[in-house]
Amino acid sequence: MDRIQATYIATRPDRDPETLGRAIALEQSVEVIEELVTPEIRESLVGRVESVEARGDEKYRITVSYAPEVAAGQVGQLFHLLFGNISFYPRLKLVDVTLPPAVTGQLHGPRYGIDGIRLATGIGQRPLLCTALKPRGSSVEHLARLAGEFARGGGDLLKDDQNLVHEDFESFKHRVDACATAVERANDQTGRRCLYLPHVAGSGSRLLRQLEFVHRRNLPGVLLCPLVMGLETAGRMAADFDLMYMAHPAMAGALTEPEDHGIASGVLLGTLARVSGADISIFPGKGGRISAALSECRDVVDLLTCPFNGLHATMPCPAGGKTLDMLEDMGREYGPDCAILIGGDLLKSGDRLAEVTGQSIGKLAGLYGEQQHAPAEWRMSSCELPGMQISALKHYLKKNPDFEWDGRESQLYKDDDTLPFKGVRRVELMGNNGEQMNFDLRYFELAPGGYTSLEKHLHTHVIIGARGTGTLVLDDTHKPLGEHDLAYIEPLAVHQLKNESDEPFGFYCLVDRDRDRPMGP
Amino acid sequence: MDRIQATYIATRPDRDPETLGRAIALEQSVEVIEELVTPEIRESLVGRVESVEARGDEKYRITVSYAPEVAAGQVGQLFHLLFGNISFYPRLKLVDVTLPPAVTGQLHGPRYGIDGIRLATGIGQRPLLCTALKPRGSSVEHLARLAGEFARGGGDLLKDDQNLVHEDFESFKHRVDACATAVERANDQTGRRCLYLPHVAGSGSRLLRQLEFVHRRNLPGVLLCPLVMGLETAGRMAADFDLMYMAHPAMAGALTEPEDHGIASGVLLGTLARVSGADISIFPGKGGRISAALSECRDVVDLLTCPFNGLHATMPCPAGGKTLDMLEDMGREYGPDCAILIGGDLLKSGDRLAEVTGQSIGKLAGLYGEQQHAPAEWRMSSCELPGMQISALKHYLKKNPDFEWDGRESQLYKDDDTLPFKGVRRVELMGNNGEQMNFDLRYFELAPGGYTSLEKHLHTHVIIGARGTGTLVLDDTHKPLGEHDLAYIEPLAVHQLKNESDEPFGFYCLVDRDRDRPMGP
Repeated sequence: MDRIQATYIATRPDRDPETLGRAIALEQSVEVIEELVTPEIRESLVGRVESVEARGDEKYRITVSYAPEVAAGQVGQLFHLLFGNISFYPRLKLVDVTLPPAVTGQLHGPRYGIDGIRLATGIGQRPLLCTALKPRGSSVEHLARLAGEFARGGGDLLKDDQNLVHEDFESFKHRVDACATAVERANDQTGRRCLYLPHVAGSGSRLLRQLEFVHRRNLPGVLLCPLVMGLETAGRMAADFDLMYMAHPAMAGALTEPEDHGIASGVLLGTLARVSGADISIFPGKGGRISAALSECRDVVDLLTCPFNGLHATMPCPAGGKTLDMLEDMGREYGPDCAILIGGDLLKSGDRLAEVTGQSIGKLAGLYGEQQHAPAEWRMSSCELPGMQISALKHYLKKNPDFEWDGRESQLYKDDDTLPFKGVRRVELMGNNGEQMNFDLRYFELAPGGYTSLEKHLHTHVIIGARGTGTLVLDDTHKPLGEHDLAYIEPLAVHQLKNESDEPFGFYCLVDRDRDRPMGP
Repeated sequence: MDRIQATYIATRPDRDPETLGRAIALEQSVEVIEELVTPEIRESLVGRVESVEARGDEKYRITVSYAPEVAAGQVGQLFHLLFGNISFYPRLKLVDVTLPPAVTGQLHGPRYGIDGIRLATGIGQRPLLCTALKPRGSSVEHLARLAGEFARGGGDLLKDDQNLVHEDFESFKHRVDACATAVERANDQTGRRCLYLPHVAGSGSRLLRQLEFVHRRNLPGVLLCPLVMGLETAGRMAADFDLMYMAHPAMAGALTEPEDHGIASGVLLGTLARVSGADISIFPGKGGRISAALSECRDVVDLLTCPFNGLHATMPCPAGGKTLDMLEDMGREYGPDCAILIGGDLLKSGDRLAEVTGQSIGKLAGLYGEQQHAPAEWRMSSCELPGMQISALKHYLKKNPDFEWDGRESQLYKDDDTLPFKGVRRVELMGNNGEQMNFDLRYFELAPGGYTSLEKHLHTHVIIGARGTGTLVLDDTHKPLGEHDLAYIEPLAVHQLKNESDEPFGFYCLVDRDRDRPMGP
C-alpha cells in the first residue's frame, strides 16, 4: 500500500455509512462540495473509501485512503488530514493509521529512539527507571537535591514535572542549572549516566531561549507537551536544537478517553508520537492514579516499537501515579525496552531516595540482567555541523588583478537575448565554502551595457560598490553607485543594477544565507 | 473573585465527588501525592474545591479554583491547568472558566478584535461576509480569480481554506502574492477593502518565513489552526508579526463533541480562543454540513463578545458548510457583530461570483444597514517594528572623501595606553539602523601604528580590505591585507588587525547580528 490509510469506527452514524465514508474523504482532503471538484483534483487529492464494514452494535469500520502528497510532508497537516474537520462529526473514532514510506520518509521520526537512549545511558537490556522532579513550589535547592539523589542511586532518566514552568528565563536557567549540576556530580561518583530532561514550555523567543540553554548546557534533551505546544512544533524544536525529545501526554486524554469519539491512544501516543519525532512517549499505564486498560497500553507499546518503514523505535514510558510495588510487574508486562516512571512513590522515600532508587534499579536488573556499557556521547549530528568542516578550506583570499580571487572561481553568465540579465560575472566569495555565517558574500561584475534581472524578493541585500560606477534602480529611483557607495535593498523592493559606463562595474552583494528566490517585478 | 475558576461536570464519577474534586485540584496544580505537599505549597499553589453539587442523572458540578500565578502568564500553561492531566479522568467535561484580571492582563487577548476589523474593512453595523479560497489542487490562476471576484463583489473577508498547504515556501509565496494582487486590484475598483487572510502552517523557520511574507506583503492577517499548531504558538506568532489572527477550529471537535468528556465549545472556541488572541474565531454554526446545537453557538458568541476584564471582543464566525439561503437567518441569529462564512455554496456561482457576492452583501446590509467608512490603516504597532521605520531612514550611503558616509557617524575610539586597542575609527554602516538583516556591516579604520584588540569569540568575521594595507594576525600567521583582499575568521580563532604602514588602513568587517561577546586570547 503506497497510500495513507485511516480507519474509523462510526457509532450510530447520522447517515448511511457509505455516504459517511465519502463525506470524510472529501471533507479531509479538499473540504468542498462535490460539484466544485474537477476530475484532476478528484484523482490526485480527494480521499478514496477503501472499505466499509458493519461491526455490530450499530458500529461501522470505515477505511479511507489518501495520496502521500496530501500530507505535504508536515506532521501538522497529517494530524489535520486524519481528524481535523471531522472531529466535529458525531461519534467517530480514529482507530488505525497506516503510513507509506513516502510519508514517513519526510517526517523522519525519532532521532535517538531506544537505541540512542541506551547508548547515552550505557544501559542495555533492562527497563530504565525514570522519575519526575516535583512538586512545583519547592525550592531550587530541594529539587536539585532530589535530582542528585536519584542520580546517585543509579536512576536512569530524570524529567521535570510538566508543572515546573517559569514566568521568566532567569529562574528557568537557575533551576535547570542547579539540577543539572547535581546530576553531573552524582554521575561522576557513580560512573553511570543519568539523563536529565528539563521541561520546556511557552512560545516564540521564550521557548527558543530555553531550548538554546538546554543545548548549550550540554543536557541531552527536554520534556515537551506536544498536544499543548503543537505536535509538529514539539518535534521540530527538539530536532532544531539537537535534543532528545520526551513527549508528555497532557491533554491527550481529551481525545483518547471517549469510547466512541476522538483518536485511539495507540494512534495518538503511539504512531503520531513516533512519526513526530518523540524519542520517549509517556502514556498512562495500567493501575495507579491514572490508569488505562492493558489492551490500550499494549497497542501504544506495539506501535512505538514495531518495524515501521525503517523509523527508529520510540521508548515507551508507562506512567500515571505508578508505585514501587508495581515495578517488577510493569517490567514483565512492558518488556525490557521501556522506561518506567515512578514519581511521588519514589520521591516520598525522602532521605532514603538514593537507596530506594538503587533497590529499584536492582529489581529491574534482576528481571533481565543489566549489561552496563560506558555511556556514549549523545549528540548525533555534531559532525554534520557546518562549523566542523572549516579548517580544511582556504579562508584568506588575495585579490588578483581584474577582481579575481585565488581559490574562488568566476561564473560567467551566458548571454542570451531571451534572458532577463546580460553581461554578468559572479564570484561566490564567502559563506558557500563551509564558513559558518548567517550570510553570503558575493562579488558581481557587469560588463559595459550589462544589467541584472529586474526583480524583488523577501530577503534583503546590502550592496557595496567595488569597481567603476553603475546605476542602482530601486523602485522608481536611479542612484549612481561608485566605489564604496552603499545601498540597502529592503524586502520586496523592485531593483536592478545596470552598467551604463564604458568600464566594468563591480560590486559586493551581501544576502542572508537562508533566503527566498526572486520574483518578477 | 481574584482566582482562576474551572467548573467541570463529572458523569458517573469513579469515586466520591468530593474526593474527585480534591484529586483534580491536586493533579492539575502540583501533580503529586498529598504527603509531599508542604503547607506553603498547599497555600500558594494547590487548587481549592469551591463547590460540589449533585445535578441529577449521576452528574456532579465541581468547581475548583487556583491562584492566578499558577497559569504563569502563559496560555499553554493555562490550557494545561484547566484540563491537561485530568483529560485522562473518565467522563469529565470542562464547562465553564472564570479568569481574574491578574490572568487576562498577562494574556492580552485580541489585538484587533471586532473594532479593529470594522476599522480595517470600513464596514460598521452589519455582519461581514466571509468566504474560503478552495479547493486545494486548483491552479494559482483559478484561486486568484476567485479571490478577485469575491472582492470585486464587495466581499469583506477572504480566508484560505486550511487545506491550502504547500511543501515549499516558493509555491506559498507565489500563490499568496497572486491572490493578494487580485484582491488589491478589485479593492482599487470598488473603493472597499476586502481583507485577505492566507493560511499559514508548519513550524520552525518554515512557519516564520510565511508569516514574514504575509507581513511584508502588507496583508492584514492570517488563518491559523491553534489546536494543530498549539494554542499559545498561534496567538504569539500573530502578535510577533503584527497580524490579525483568524482561528480555525480543526481538531477542536475531538474535545467539544463528546457529551460527557472534554471541553465545552464555549470554553474552547469562546473563552480560550479570546484569551489566546484570536481576532476572529470560526466555529460550527447551526445547520449545514457541520452543525452544532443553537445553545452551543450562543455560548460561543456570548463568550467571544461579553465584557471580559477589558479584553477586546473577538469576532464570531459561524461556519461549516453554510449556504446562501441561510444568510439572513444567520444574520438575525448571531447579530450584527459576526462574520458569516459561506464557502462552496458561494464559490459554485462560478462566473457570477461577484454578482452573487454583491447580492449577499445587500441582504446583510438590508438587515442592519451598512454605515460604510473609509477603511483605516490596520497595522496597530507598525511604528514599533524595526522593519517599518526604514523608509524614513537613509539607505543609500554615498561615500565622502576619507571614507565617511552621509547619514552615518564615525566613532573614534579614545586612545589610552591601558586599553587593548589603539587608533581605531568605526562606522556602523548597515544592520544597526533598522535594516532587516541577519548580519551587521561595519567599517573600521586604523591610523598608522593603530591596532584592534587581540581577541577571540564564538562568532565569525569576514574582513574585506578597503583602504591602504594592513596586517591580519590570525593564530600564528601574519597576512597582508590590501584593497579587496578577503579573510574569514573562524570561531574561537585568536585574531588582531594592525596598521604598520604610514597611511590609514580601512576594512569592512561583517558579523552575524546575533553574537557573543569577545574573550581575551
